[in-house]
Amino acid sequence: MLSVVVLGSGNVAQHLIKALSGLSEVALLQAWARHPEKLAHLLPAGKIAADISTLMAADIYIISVSDDAISQVSARLPFANRLVVHTSGSTGVDGLASGNRRGAFYPLQTFSKNKEINFSTIPICVESEFPKDYSTLEKLASALSQNVYGINSAQRQALHVAAVFTSNFVNHLYTLGNQICADNNIPFDILKPLIKEVADKINYLSPVEAQTGPAVRNDAQTIQRHLDFLQDSHKKEIYTLLTHSIQQTHEQKL
Amino acid sequence: MLSVVVLGSGNVAQHLIKALSGLSEVALLQAWARHPEKLAHLLPAGKIAADISTLMAADIYIISVSDDAISQVSARLPFANRLVVHTSGSTGVDGLASGNRRGAFYPLQTFSKNKEINFSTIPICVESEFPKDYSTLEKLASALSQNVYGINSAQRQALHVAAVFTSNFVNHLYTLGNQICADNNIPFDILKPLIKEVADKINYLSPVEAQTGPAVRNDAQTIQRHLDFLQDSHKKEIYTLLTHSIQQTHEQKL
Repeated sequence: MLSVVVLGSGNVAQHLIKALSGLSEVALLQAWARHPEKLAHLLPAGKIAADISTLMAADIYIISVSDDAISQVSARLPFANRLVVHTSGSTGVDGLASGNRRGAFYPLQTFSKNKEINFSTIPICVESEFPKDYSTLEKLASALSQNVYGINSAQRQALHVAAVFTSNFVNHLYTLGNQICADNNIPFDILKPLIKEVADKINYLSPVEAQTGPAVRNDAQTIQRHLDFLQDSHKKEIYTLLTHSIQQTHEQKL
Repeated sequence: MLSVVVLGSGNVAQHLIKALSGLSEVALLQAWARHPEKLAHLLPAGKIAADISTLMAADIYIISVSDDAISQVSARLPFANRLVVHTSGSTGVDGLASGNRRGAFYPLQTFSKNKEINFSTIPICVESEFPKDYSTLEKLASALSQNVYGINSAQRQALHVAAVFTSNFVNHLYTLGNQICADNNIPFDILKPLIKEVADKINYLSPVEAQTGPAVRNDAQTIQRHLDFLQDSHKKEIYTLLTHSIQQTHEQKL
């Protein structure tokens, strides 16, 4: 049985607390947050610590706070030489204060307050400063998910950047498509089967192989018609840059 | 029973021929292609027309060729006053030669040669030059799909641009994410559950509501770390432009 304490009350912390509470292999001893009332709907009052100096002894402390608070929160821990991890994609293990045995426990998923998450399919990337702690983290990650990866700090940084491209930026392109539809009285629903198919296709083809559209066909007429259509200089700029990037990628491939 | 002739042998034409061949409400009389051998695996020889002047009388002629060939192929049709449609997202009905009753039959999906498609969920956007032809096109579209929309030429142009943003450009962001993974010895598979979730989320939240990540959080430190990480000037430029676009969108929202 692994004993765990979670520190934080944001989206990731809340989803983690919910998921850990449901595991038979894990004892979630306590959760601490600067604003403990944010956890009141998730845990009984006795399990919510308002004072960081009262934290119980546990096998793993998971700090799930905003990136710029990780260092500060970890420095306030009133003990040394215990296993302390953060959940940040873009922070090295050295982002945690020294004194404890450091590590990372990074669930690679987008978390929204109002959307349920099935943790069992979320890739969890683990890293430990000391080899002996790796198996502890792997055990916890495996209790939550089928997809556990050993990823060091440099790789995690790269992965986080790749995630921004394939997730945050992708979602923003959905937003721009939605705006174009709204401006022309077209229901956004028409685009949803296409969006689903594009995301599904990379399970069968590499994204380079799956590329379609006017840019990869070098269809200059259609590209020009699209640029003429786009009044908004901002969308025009994005259209031009991404079209160019597609063409450059596929020239390199040839 | 609707009788149909398909002209073309590209991805869309081939998927259409396959789908139409399986419908009890439709008689696919013939298909014509400049390179008839490309259709040999789909239809018996007797149904493949090599000579466009030998086309049979049909209720609907579907021209599914590259955008710049639509005008030319439609001008070669050896008859007048019949219902002739194209399948192009970025061409008005006036892209067809006059003389026949013109229309559009635009299945909004990404078609790849090596990936099967279930037509029943594909939105089909129909338009007819003459009102009396609309119900014929709607009948054909409804035989193929549950999602049929009346979309005029101006809307179809807008929709095609929106589809480029939400499909072609999205797929290219997958490609860039894949490159970053490959450069850092990270399996691209780690990103797949995230990609799936982002695409799925817009069924529950609007894309503006679903936006997460350093740009929308105005997390300047992480953004700077990501820019420092990206060596490739090209990816840096895309990162900067899309980050700025996310921030601009969400400022407008406030």
